[in-house]
Amino acid sequence: MSQPELRASLITPTVDFSAQGIQHGFLRLPHSRDDSAWGSVMIPITVVRNGEGPTALLTGGNHGDEYEGPIALFDLARTLKVEDVSGRVIIVPAMNHPAFVAGTRTSPIDQGNLNRSFPGRPDGTVTPKIADYFQRVLLPLADIVLDFHSGGRTLDFLPFCAAHILPDKQQEARSFELVEAFSAPYSMKMLEIDAVGMYDTAAEEMGKVFITTELGGGGTATARSAGIAKRGVINVLRRAGIAAGDADLSPTQWLDMPGIDCFSFAEEGGLIEPLVDMGETVIKDQMIARIYPLGRTGAQPSEVLAKMDGMLCARHFPGLVKAGDCVAVLAITV
Amino acid sequence: MSQPELRASLITPTVDFSAQGIQHGFLRLPHSRDDSAWGSVMIPITVVRNGEGPTALLTGGNHGDEYEGPIALFDLARTLKVEDVSGRVIIVPAMNHPAFVAGTRTSPIDQGNLNRSFPGRPDGTVTPKIADYFQRVLLPLADIVLDFHSGGRTLDFLPFCAAHILPDKQQEARSFELVEAFSAPYSMKMLEIDAVGMYDTAAEEMGKVFITTELGGGGTATARSAGIAKRGVINVLRRAGIAAGDADLSPTQWLDMPGIDCFSFAEEGGLIEPLVDMGETVIKDQMIARIYPLGRTGAQPSEVLAKMDGMLCARHFPGLVKAGDCVAVLAITV
Amino acid sequence: MSQPELRASLITPTVDFSAQGIQHGFLRLPHSRDDSAWGSVMIPITVVRNGEGPTALLTGGNHGDEYEGPIALFDLARTLKVEDVSGRVIIVPAMNHPAFVAGTRTSPIDQGNLNRSFPGRPDGTVTPKIADYFQRVLLPLADIVLDFHSGGRTLDFLPFCAAHILPDKQQEARSFELVEAFSAPYSMKMLEIDAVGMYDTAAEEMGKVFITTELGGGGTATARSAGIAKRGVINVLRRAGIAAGDADLSPTQWLDMPGIDCFSFAEEGGLIEPLVDMGETVIKDQMIARIYPLGRTGAQPSEVLAKMDGMLCARHFPGLVKAGDCVAVLAITV
Amino acid sequence: MSQPELRASLITPTVDFSAQGIQHGFLRLPHSRDDSAWGSVMIPITVVRNGEGPTALLTGGNHGDEYEGPIALFDLARTLKVEDVSGRVIIVPAMNHPAFVAGTRTSPIDQGNLNRSFPGRPDGTVTPKIADYFQRVLLPLADIVLDFHSGGRTLDFLPFCAAHILPDKQQEARSFELVEAFSAPYSMKMLEIDAVGMYDTAAEEMGKVFITTELGGGGTATARSAGIAKRGVINVLRRAGIAAGDADLSPTQWLDMPGIDCFSFAEEGGLIEPLVDMGETVIKDQMIARIYPLGRTGAQPSEVLAKMDGMLCARHFPGLVKAGDCVAVLAITV
Amino acid sequence: MSQPELRASLITPTVDFSAQGIQHGFLRLPHSRDDSAWGSVMIPITVVRNGEGPTALLTGGNHGDEYEGPIALFDLARTLKVEDVSGRVIIVPAMNHPAFVAGTRTSPIDQGNLNRSFPGRPDGTVTPKIADYFQRVLLPLADIVLDFHSGGRTLDFLPFCAAHILPDKQQEARSFELVEAFSAPYSMKMLEIDAVGMYDTAAEEMGKVFITTELGGGGTATARSAGIAKRGVINVLRRAGIAAGDADLSPTQWLDMPGIDCFSFAEEGGLIEPLVDMGETVIKDQMIARIYPLGRTGAQPSEVLAKMDGMLCARHFPGLVKAGDCVAVLAITV
Amino acid sequence: MSQPELRASLITPTVDFSAQGIQHGFLRLPHSRDDSAWGSVMIPITVVRNGEGPTALLTGGNHGDEYEGPIALFDLARTLKVEDVSGRVIIVPAMNHPAFVAGTRTSPIDQGNLNRSFPGRPDGTVTPKIADYFQRVLLPLADIVLDFHSGGRTLDFLPFCAAHILPDKQQEARSFELVEAFSAPYSMKMLEIDAVGMYDTAAEEMGKVFITTELGGGGTATARSAGIAKRGVINVLRRAGIAAGDADLSPTQWLDMPGIDCFSFAEEGGLIEPLVDMGETVIKDQMIARIYPLGRTGAQPSEVLAKMDGMLCARHFPGLVKAGDCVAVLAITV
Repeated sequence: MSQPELRASLITPTVDFSAQGIQHGFLRLPHSRDDSAWGSVMIPITVVRNGEGPTALLTGGNHGDEYEGPIALFDLARTLKVEDVSGRVIIVPAMNHPAFVAGTRTSPIDQGNLNRSFPGRPDGTVTPKIADYFQRVLLPLADIVLDFHSGGRTLDFLPFCAAHILPDKQQEARSFELVEAFSAPYSMKMLEIDAVGMYDTAAEEMGKVFITTELGGGGTATARSAGIAKRGVINVLRRAGIAAGDADLSPTQWLDMPGIDCFSFAEEGGLIEPLVDMGETVIKDQMIARIYPLGRTGAQPSEVLAKMDGMLCARHFPGLVKAGDCVAVLAITV
Repeated sequence: MSQPELRASLITPTVDFSAQGIQHGFLRLPHSRDDSAWGSVMIPITVVRNGEGPTALLTGGNHGDEYEGPIALFDLARTLKVEDVSGRVIIVPAMNHPAFVAGTRTSPIDQGNLNRSFPGRPDGTVTPKIADYFQRVLLPLADIVLDFHSGGRTLDFLPFCAAHILPDKQQEARSFELVEAFSAPYSMKMLEIDAVGMYDTAAEEMGKVFITTELGGGGTATARSAGIAKRGVINVLRRAGIAAGDADLSPTQWLDMPGIDCFSFAEEGGLIEPLVDMGETVIKDQMIARIYPLGRTGAQPSEVLAKMDGMLCARHFPGLVKAGDCVAVLAITV
Repeated sequence: MSQPELRASLITPTVDFSAQGIQHGFLRLPHSRDDSAWGSVMIPITVVRNGEGPTALLTGGNHGDEYEGPIALFDLARTLKVEDVSGRVIIVPAMNHPAFVAGTRTSPIDQGNLNRSFPGRPDGTVTPKIADYFQRVLLPLADIVLDFHSGGRTLDFLPFCAAHILPDKQQEARSFELVEAFSAPYSMKMLEIDAVGMYDTAAEEMGKVFITTELGGGGTATARSAGIAKRGVINVLRRAGIAAGDADLSPTQWLDMPGIDCFSFAEEGGLIEPLVDMGETVIKDQMIARIYPLGRTGAQPSEVLAKMDGMLCARHFPGLVKAGDCVAVLAITV
Repeated sequence: MSQPELRASLITPTVDFSAQGIQHGFLRLPHSRDDSAWGSVMIPITVVRNGEGPTALLTGGNHGDEYEGPIALFDLARTLKVEDVSGRVIIVPAMNHPAFVAGTRTSPIDQGNLNRSFPGRPDGTVTPKIADYFQRVLLPLADIVLDFHSGGRTLDFLPFCAAHILPDKQQEARSFELVEAFSAPYSMKMLEIDAVGMYDTAAEEMGKVFITTELGGGGTATARSAGIAKRGVINVLRRAGIAAGDADLSPTQWLDMPGIDCFSFAEEGGLIEPLVDMGETVIKDQMIARIYPLGRTGAQPSEVLAKMDGMLCARHFPGLVKAGDCVAVLAITV
Repeated sequence: MSQPELRASLITPTVDFSAQGIQHGFLRLPHSRDDSAWGSVMIPITVVRNGEGPTALLTGGNHGDEYEGPIALFDLARTLKVEDVSGRVIIVPAMNHPAFVAGTRTSPIDQGNLNRSFPGRPDGTVTPKIADYFQRVLLPLADIVLDFHSGGRTLDFLPFCAAHILPDKQQEARSFELVEAFSAPYSMKMLEIDAVGMYDTAAEEMGKVFITTELGGGGTATARSAGIAKRGVINVLRRAGIAAGDADLSPTQWLDMPGIDCFSFAEEGGLIEPLVDMGETVIKDQMIARIYPLGRTGAQPSEVLAKMDGMLCARHFPGLVKAGDCVAVLAITV
Repeated sequence: MSQPELRASLITPTVDFSAQGIQHGFLRLPHSRDDSAWGSVMIPITVVRNGEGPTALLTGGNHGDEYEGPIALFDLARTLKVEDVSGRVIIVPAMNHPAFVAGTRTSPIDQGNLNRSFPGRPDGTVTPKIADYFQRVLLPLADIVLDFHSGGRTLDFLPFCAAHILPDKQQEARSFELVEAFSAPYSMKMLEIDAVGMYDTAAEEMGKVFITTELGGGGTATARSAGIAKRGVINVLRRAGIAAGDADLSPTQWLDMPGIDCFSFAEEGGLIEPLVDMGETVIKDQMIARIYPLGRTGAQPSEVLAKMDGMLCARHFPGLVKAGDCVAVLAITV
């Protein structure tokens, strides 16, 4: 039985994807709300086209509280010159724009986590409508896709670029070539356990070359982490032959997260005392953190132990933790 | 004309400040609220007393989203041995306990900023009632006071310990002696412009030796920053002769913030791109950050410039900034 | 493949649609909520029946912040005499009753926009349950349907009655006959671009004669606009032969909205300065409004221009505007 | 046409259902939220297994504001001895744990009413994910199921244990045998009118022996009502041969709710004056309650009348009532 | 130094306190708010006057979630006959009307606890403005004052009427005479420890005969508790010679709360299992309740013990408890 | 006894009031909040100075939802030429800037109604701090003050300019001269009953020439109402000799509001049906509006009657009304 046909997306772009030159505009999504019956969500977009050639789709703000990607892409959108491009660059610095403006991971309109909303629905709430437009309009235009992530307000990551281990080894090889070109301090080959609803999966299932990043976190960016993002995106465009010039490479450390033992979860909530910092190595059963109850002094803190040898590559960011939160992620160097 | 006499504080301690030994208890403040007519705010407190000798009052959580102090003090409360003390140590790891539990700078009950609420009021809302109890009960018991601060969720600081320039030079000298003993990577002599309502001022006006810190920020702590706090508080107790042993000193860099040109404010809100990182030096008129408007690509970002030569010692933490936010603070080394 | 059969609606009417005479009652929809486990949504309804004859279904409050319809229908429900009716009149002055009580466009329970929720779902949240009851119970009882709208709190309209251009020209003609009988100052033939989920569409697809209105806005009503509604509904009942007497006609100006150039959207948010008032005519490229940024004086406002010659027939109502809001709608007279 | 295959549940238990002995752990459900990107819902669970034998699944907190069940089950989980068990006991004292922690009927995360969410969805929001795990993992493990309910914050009930009238008379008989063993002061045979989405229905359709309770209400428990629950659950385990010892029986009064006339609803909101207390009997047309308007004195209260002879077995609990709330439920003794 | 003179109250009564007969009206307090610039708080009031004689001021809803008083007073306001009165009765069934309508202890407008707001302020927020009107206008009109209280949503009480032990023994004696006339099942002589801000204190300091009640709780009323209130108020008016007829007396049990050991507080939050019910007696060190942690099974509950021999006369009502909440109050019979 | 001396305002202007030429800047008020520890409220200000001469202080946004003033003043700030000024013009288009940005009457920070907060407090919350700055810094600089008001979201007014009847008849005469120069369609002499806390009173007590307006309402502006404001402010500057050119006068109708009978209040909440429109005349006892209960059809609406003969000059704007709201204001022509 065939799928029922989907209605057309209600999103209207104010740019022409086939036009030559540079255009700054919006994806306009009508959104009737109590404070504006005929309002719209306006997602900024830039399209740069010069002649024929491959298309790169560059995205940030998939989660609204991750900043290296938006910084690199707002910067690229105002500085990229048409004459340096061969082909087309589509830049959406803040995919989930309502979340980006609110500074939250998910959309304040429908609590949607955009990266769990693919393939989306043209008749859903705002977040699945955005996913649907990427699924049916923007991804088909692209040859390569770079989607920026960072840890957001509640996680911190060592800065890495990554791609997925894929069934199509040629697609995989082209992806890892771009990961290498991105040239982040760390790089990772990821085997996604639960890929349902992800933008990554949507792109990869269409055969696109897809790479992503984690470049810091805590709901902030630094000059260093923003610099990694800005250099990385240009490097990728150059390696793909879309931007002129050679990629500016530097050594990267490849990491692997071999399994579930990489993750340590809190069983009690409280005040977290970290005992290991990002990039430091631990051995199995070493204490990574203590968690103090908030309500009294003199009580025993609970202890979070390493379940394997490894390097701390991600951690819970806020000073307070709740039962069930992921406290620490360990990786091994490869 | 004399002040009208204040009514007694409604706060009841469950500990006896004059008893020998170690006690873990609460400051109980009755707080009738819609979800508990006869409820109370319960502020954890530990008192350690051994013989006669000076009293140290150690406090954290004056702002509820600053974590190095609470970590060091919850840890100290469970590890300090009575036999290592000569005199008395009073530990309140989370002064503004409702804010601490909520993970916010100010109290969720009355939006009170405790450090702007002194001398407090016994018949005020919860925050001024807490201030009043410190003003009239705890501060008078103390000889030295160490109040931990960090940047909280919205600021980040180079780690320093500090005391104020005071009219009483003997009091000032004893304070700076303890700053030096704290042995943070940086130390600062502060001239407070607007000291109204501060806990610092309340303590200093009673002639207490008062020191404070800024030890990081962003609403998190690291193993390194928590370690500075833990070592610092023991060092201070040792130098004051209250804890046994010698202070474990290391070199510190003294900083000064000579005037209003240290501070750069945003005149436009938006996405902030930092161009300088903490501890880096800049020269006058150097660009410290760009601020991109959130609503469109291709627009010119506004620029934040340094108003003097200096080292970046504090910065706005979140990735988004609003008009009027302090973006950067410069200090000079002395 | 046939549709899966839908479960029965959980809505219970306290009126008997087949009984002669007048009944005031409720559509009771069980709604278990935190503050009443066995609570209900109670939608007021009046049924007036006298002998055999056609049925008019009269509705207001499809959006909860539009008042001319509810005023006319609460008034009609208390004043319509059984003996003046031939057939049946079903009056629901506030279809989305939770939104009506809250004074909001959408439901405070599930944020449902009732007019985008058809055909509804018997197992959905409250708003689609209401839509389903109209779809499967009330609309099938009706011959003619009059659904009142106005601009609500965020839009303002010239007062008009309207019907849709339909594939069934006989159905269309009967609809426009009733529009004419309504006798609003303006009348409109509408070609709906995006009709998915609308009550209008649901009624028209069942072959009903369906007319609607826009009678003002801003979340208020005036004596004049309420008077148009009160006269219009009686006129329609009379022309349809359901109420006794002749329609009280007056001249109407027919309008047309020929295409997308009728609509002007804001690309920047801010304080809006209208330069043209309702009913005034503009020429292409004339400035309709300025939008001042909220955060500083002395800056250039952005400008909203007319994209065609026309008459201002609808406008954004609140003094502040957000990017993406529809600022103005132009119509042409026909 | 077969159902599309469902994806696996994302819930991971930290206990091994097949292991011998007693285990206390969690059902961990990953839940990415704005304040913890990699957070989890942690539902406490205890499994006690001793040899082979039937499995009892004991649940409370299906609605988060009902307390007799959670009290009895938290108590049982810490006191049940492995050696007293023959078979297996699975205890989940707070099925809708987010609602239980919030003290609300429905989940604060997605407003989900767990008992209207079956069979659930593995790709839904948190509440349907929990339902799906019970549907596809826990219910299949069980032979008998006891699900505790009370009235919650907004209803009050005479304490009774109940089972449903079922098409399978053998299944029904075994259920009523356990109701009798529970030995509450009242017992009830229920004919469910609207069983869609209920946990009860899900269990019964799998052929499980399912019993439930209503043991008080108002969002509280008493020593007496908690005692009924504690004795009841042990009695059930004993009668089922899973716990050692004989059931401690006492007389019960069987009740019946013969139809819609049992229920009286408010047509006006206001301040409710109850005129009849729980367990008292009324005759048809007797006044059960008055409802005073909140806004003025001297006005006539509306009156709520009994629609049949009967005993008051449930009532609206809060002092204020809204239009559409169920005010009183009458039962007859059988 | 004399007090600065206070400005006049902004409250306007729509009744004339000196007029003969019965009047139902309002105390209108202008309250400019975002949703009504020229709005008002409207507090219903009834005045019944017949000839000369003493004035009784009867009040309920001092806390907005206590219902026996409002029920008795709304009922009295519509049933009291002018010809049965000698003197004047002023009835305000819901003093803190905004809180009463919201069903909360304190005002939703300013979070004001009216019974801690005396003597109030004419230029304060809404709650102190109400207090000021009682302080300066209504209390001076009164000879006797009856203020109804119950436990509200979060406490439950044995039903008692009470008055305070006063320095003026004649005033005290007249108060206890009215307590006895009220004829509640229990009666209490109270020694207020912290009387600052109470309506009671304001009345007593003016020399008024003041009695109060606690008549149940949990945010509900029963036919029995409402009956106690209705009979009590008539009894008081009769004993005071204001209403015709004899008081309908029944035996009462006098209670005393001798000191701080009457009160047991929770030091941990969690799920409360009550082990003793209202009116039951305990001996010192007997366990009154267990408190289970909400987050895991198998953990030890904390225990709440009786600090003296006594009868349980009040208890925490909701099923969940927070650290610092009063769990139980014991009284002794006298 | 003298007043205690007030601390200095914490507000810092970024403009120099004594400098020649035009400056656009801010009043920066430090405001530490949970989402920005070192944040500020930034109130836009423009100062235009040319030579010596009188100072006009022009203000809007005293209430944040009134738009004619801000439109006229943002427009004036960008178009006023230095060379056309003799003296000084200080323009603050949005005094309560936080309320203006939120589109609400009062401040979202502290719920402060700025026009009831004078003389303010330098150590209060944000709104009284703003009032204090106007009281002690800006008003003393001014010779004439024009403060724009409109009805805001909840009231509508006939457009008028007004001044107060004052004890100093010379000051009064100069004020009415400027009212006449403003040349609104209507003009009014106001006798303020309750002037406590108003900006008007603060200015008048300093002897300033103070005029104000009401120019529409409903939370919107029209081209017509904005035009009245724009023409009026230039007219006033010209008449005062500060701007070059002659005032552009047109006839005005003087109105008077002779007493409390001008105001009609709602005693019941509901849906309001207006029966009279703005500017229409009524006679005593004429029905001005009906109010329908929201919860049922067929009920009698309550009626609002005129208490005197007059012209409708202000009315409640939203379609729903609450008990206590002012429904209508009548004026007489003079």
